[in-house]
Amino acid sequence: MEKVRVCFYPENRCIEVDKGENLLRAAMQADVHINASCGGEGYCGKCRVIIEKGEVTQKLAVKLSQEEVKRGYVLACSSTIESDVDVRVPIETQLGDKSALTRRPPIPLQGYTLTAKDWAERLPQWELNPPTTKFHLVLDKPTLEDNLSDAERIKRELSRLAGLKDVVIDYPMLQALPGLIRAASFDVTVTVLDRGQELRAVRIEKGDTSPRQAALAVDLGTTTVSVQLIDLQTGAVTAEASDYNGQISYGEDIITRIIYTTRSTGLAKLQSAAVGTIWNLIQQVVEQTSTEFCSITHLVVSGNTTMVHLLLGLDPRYIRVDPYIPVAQFFPWIKASNIGIRIASGVYLRCTPCVASYVGGDIVAGVLASGMFNSEKITLYIDIGTNGEIALGNKDWLMTCSCSAGPAFEGAGVKHGMRATRGAIEQVRINEVTHEPMIITVGNRRPVGICGSGLIDTLAELFLTGIMDERGKINTDLGTARVRKGDVGGEYVLAWADESGTNRDIVITDVDIDNLMRAKAAIYAGINILLEEVGMDITMVEEILIAGAFGRYLEIDKAIIIGLLPDVGTEKIKFVGNGSLLGSYLMALSKNLIEEADRIANMMTYLELSTSPKFMDQYVSALFFPHTEIQMFPTVMERLAEARERAKLGAAGGETA
Amino acid sequence: MEKVRVCFYPENRCIEVDKGENLLRAAMQADVHINASCGGEGYCGKCRVIIEKGEVTQKLAVKLSQEEVKRGYVLACSSTIESDVDVRVPIETQLGDKSALTRRPPIPLQGYTLTAKDWAERLPQWELNPPTTKFHLVLDKPTLEDNLSDAERIKRELSRLAGLKDVVIDYPMLQALPGLIRAASFDVTVTVLDRGQELRAVRIEKGDTSPRQAALAVDLGTTTVSVQLIDLQTGAVTAEASDYNGQISYGEDIITRIIYTTRSTGLAKLQSAAVGTIWNLIQQVVEQTSTEFCSITHLVVSGNTTMVHLLLGLDPRYIRVDPYIPVAQFFPWIKASNIGIRIASGVYLRCTPCVASYVGGDIVAGVLASGMFNSEKITLYIDIGTNGEIALGNKDWLMTCSCSAGPAFEGAGVKHGMRATRGAIEQVRINEVTHEPMIITVGNRRPVGICGSGLIDTLAELFLTGIMDERGKINTDLGTARVRKGDVGGEYVLAWADESGTNRDIVITDVDIDNLMRAKAAIYAGINILLEEVGMDITMVEEILIAGAFGRYLEIDKAIIIGLLPDVGTEKIKFVGNGSLLGSYLMALSKNLIEEADRIANMMTYLELSTSPKFMDQYVSALFFPHTEIQMFPTVMERLAEARERAKLGAAGGETA
Repeated sequence: MEKVRVCFYPENRCIEVDKGENLLRAAMQADVHINASCGGEGYCGKCRVIIEKGEVTQKLAVKLSQEEVKRGYVLACSSTIESDVDVRVPIETQLGDKSALTRRPPIPLQGYTLTAKDWAERLPQWELNPPTTKFHLVLDKPTLEDNLSDAERIKRELSRLAGLKDVVIDYPMLQALPGLIRAASFDVTVTVLDRGQELRAVRIEKGDTSPRQAALAVDLGTTTVSVQLIDLQTGAVTAEASDYNGQISYGEDIITRIIYTTRSTGLAKLQSAAVGTIWNLIQQVVEQTSTEFCSITHLVVSGNTTMVHLLLGLDPRYIRVDPYIPVAQFFPWIKASNIGIRIASGVYLRCTPCVASYVGGDIVAGVLASGMFNSEKITLYIDIGTNGEIALGNKDWLMTCSCSAGPAFEGAGVKHGMRATRGAIEQVRINEVTHEPMIITVGNRRPVGICGSGLIDTLAELFLTGIMDERGKINTDLGTARVRKGDVGGEYVLAWADESGTNRDIVITDVDIDNLMRAKAAIYAGINILLEEVGMDITMVEEILIAGAFGRYLEIDKAIIIGLLPDVGTEKIKFVGNGSLLGSYLMALSKNLIEEADRIANMMTYLELSTSPKFMDQYVSALFFPHTEIQMFPTVMERLAEARERAKLGAAGGETA
Repeated sequence: MEKVRVCFYPENRCIEVDKGENLLRAAMQADVHINASCGGEGYCGKCRVIIEKGEVTQKLAVKLSQEEVKRGYVLACSSTIESDVDVRVPIETQLGDKSALTRRPPIPLQGYTLTAKDWAERLPQWELNPPTTKFHLVLDKPTLEDNLSDAERIKRELSRLAGLKDVVIDYPMLQALPGLIRAASFDVTVTVLDRGQELRAVRIEKGDTSPRQAALAVDLGTTTVSVQLIDLQTGAVTAEASDYNGQISYGEDIITRIIYTTRSTGLAKLQSAAVGTIWNLIQQVVEQTSTEFCSITHLVVSGNTTMVHLLLGLDPRYIRVDPYIPVAQFFPWIKASNIGIRIASGVYLRCTPCVASYVGGDIVAGVLASGMFNSEKITLYIDIGTNGEIALGNKDWLMTCSCSAGPAFEGAGVKHGMRATRGAIEQVRINEVTHEPMIITVGNRRPVGICGSGLIDTLAELFLTGIMDERGKINTDLGTARVRKGDVGGEYVLAWADESGTNRDIVITDVDIDNLMRAKAAIYAGINILLEEVGMDITMVEEILIAGAFGRYLEIDKAIIIGLLPDVGTEKIKFVGNGSLLGSYLMALSKNLIEEADRIANMMTYLELSTSPKFMDQYVSALFFPHTEIQMFPTVMERLAEARERAKLGAAGGETA
């Protein structure tokens, strides 16, 4: 990706961004405040800036006069950076420039997200060694002297060519064998699946198809399902697609779906919905590339315990009742067609093993992908989704627990909460002086709600700017229309009705904040319980890995400010992105890693929190921003002090302007 | 079985027979000639004898006058021996008593049929160790502290109780697991199948069902299918049933059926017919006992290569064309329900491996059952059915071949040939002087045809009495109506139209004899080829084992007389009966023997005869009774000399009578 340099004046702050980046997002990244209320749709017209040098392309400029366009004005939110540019933010757009001048620079995200190069270092035993292998066999034609059966002829050649012994041939392949082998003049390609205890020949094709081999990695989430198509020759992801899990129409959360399975055909319907979603995504990734369906040789699926049960048609009802017992934790290879995924004959599917009812294969996959099972470093792995699963340990030991955090960070229980789809506010800055927000939405649409990273941003900004106190209450006496008393206590208006996509004010309320605080408290308490269990404290953790679907714009320091993540140095914290999908991808490429996943699932000690009195104590202590024990958050203490100082200066500066 | 002593006068010859034996059969066994033409139905009234002492019960006596009954006359054919008896054969019934006096005693069959005791000696490593095992598990109930999944809980208990590791649980069992395990209060029985490379839990039942476990042994013959129900607690056969293979309606022989599979749904129809026959027999054996279907845990099926292909739905078409290649020789465990045998959930089926297209699992099963693979003795195993498969060797090496003998001994290509069903002539004696026959039929019905053992008897008797010469031609100049010229050369009348069940004369013709001679020549040539291949001659063979469905009354010495079996001492020759069924039975009881069967199939070197010039030479030499090289048949030479001597004496005696 070509890089360009953007400089903002009068701040005189320059950053490098990808060519084609949105100008408002570049300003957000440079921590240059620009008023912006419509999420980037060009509707409010507030984010006007002047291009002094360089080139941007502007989508729409209806809010600018001919005269302004001539003078170089553009709307930042709808401008794309095409070259190095100098941008001047006029005074009416800045509002509170001084505060921006002194704020500490934001943490660039890209350096914190693990890259492919990192995996190679973290998983040294990882090599391209998929569980299925295609063997091109030019068989000796049978004669009266060499009259082995078709099946034994193939086995002999597999033994000669690759030293494979005791290969078992699947019956469907046996049935296809005599006709196909002769139509192909005994020049065939056989796919062999290594099931660990057994080698199984699962498919036969005419001629040499060995250069064409693909696999699928699937993350089967409660909300979202993602599928990657992988070229097994190179290990590259050639296509990727995501969609909502079709089960959502039977209930948004796991518990509702489990209850639905107790109806007569409930389980079958949910199974069919998951299969339908996966099948649609498979079609999409196949259509995106020149891949043929029949090149696909296997699938690896990671999901939470309930999702895997529903996919495989296993009754999940005992997952939700004490003592929370799943049917199975380990899932042997199964024919994909047996559950209705009819890609081609002999395609097998494997689900990543689970640890317990509420620590599933998605976490095992993530722990695998993180490489922590292979590292000396004491590592903390946190997946913030509906529940917040946490794993702690290194190559010698692994502990895990699930905090009933609830889906607040996914938007549930939050008045204008939503998933990270179009129009979701995903980044927020609040001016310390004017209390005016700067918002960016997914897809640069008029805002319709707030997604996870937006909620964390909002809480952190409300807290740093003093709009919200340590207990999560909004101060409604600030003399701005942005804060007010609502039906359920204080509320802050992120977007006015006329700027929003819903024609209603988009607000965050005291009740929302309370729900979010409970969620972050549950996660933080879970972290502390795991540490306590092994006699450690947070400073002994050498690396913190964050997984989950927070979108691209979650900022670590904001999560620390609200006490969701521990304050132990941002350099320790890294993103793994979608750990479940990444783990599936790695397992699809390497049978060694499939074995590792089994070992990890066996090795992880599960701690049940739901009945732990210690957990309740920790939880209550964490119901505070950032925490009742503020000394655990030294940098947050500093920043709060700085913010208060700046607020004074800013107020003074504001007065002088 | 209670034994009784029967003495025949004036011959003064006594034998022991089972109480309840038929009197005509007893006479046959004692080699006392009694005229008998109607096969034992009491219709011809020729077999009248006088009971001088002891008791017989008589079924019908319409052919006897009141006066005769008072004097102690009975019809031998319809009399059952109830105690020790003295029987006088009146002169009109004897006809040629002197010849009988001097003939050598027949070889009693019972001593030659291997018994259960023999197996224990022949298969020392055989113990009751079936491939499926039921484990009664009283599981710990799950708690928050012990929150293993249902599947892992079962695996833990299997490991604790029986040391089983890495058991894989079948998906259908997983699906049943959570509901059943709780309904059973965690007190369950799990069936585990040892698949060699993998232990697989295949079924779960409530409570302790471990004392109830049964298996099925199946011989899937081209003509006849036999099923045994086996109690796996004791190893005893608790029920047995046989029926014609339902595929017969699509063709009597293998080749016709293979051709039928080339029709669009031909293979499916033949598979369904075989499955239907097996299923009916399973129902019969289950109904005969108090066994429940769900006690059955596995099946072992042995059959020739084509039969196994048809059962498993594998395309057999290349079996019949040069170079005669089957789809597979080894058949992994398969769910019985996958091929339509729906006994209970999780019942698996295994087919005995084959060696080649024309040496099938029936032969491997027989070689297994014979114990020859485990013996120092050089053993010759001969299965005389449609083809005549032969195996030669011992524990160190095994050779095998299939002689295209054709189904002549099964009655095909023989004018009045038939299978050993009701009315089939199964035993024959011919009076050397009068040339009158003594016949016994299956079921003591009026004769309708001649089955295998009857054909061998007939040939031997025709030969010994000089009615037929060494080239198989009937001498029509003997001055008796029994021999005559027919449409296709000479013929001998075994039963007159008015005595037969078909209202036609039942004859054997020169053409029939020619076909039978070809069949026996093919088998004998096969034996010699195998011997030649390893540089041996027939005298070096230490044991000869005969398998196949010749019925109970095949006499070894008759088979030697016609040159079907080698003349190396009858003490070396033993019957294994239905080797295929016996092998299936043994494998159903012992997973070690299942492994042995694989080893045997791998070890057997197959010799293709169809294109061997040596075979043609041997075959032509054997187109003679007993053989062109008469010195290979020393006892036959003696008997022929004796017979000629007796014929002279008899003719003289007949003239004096």
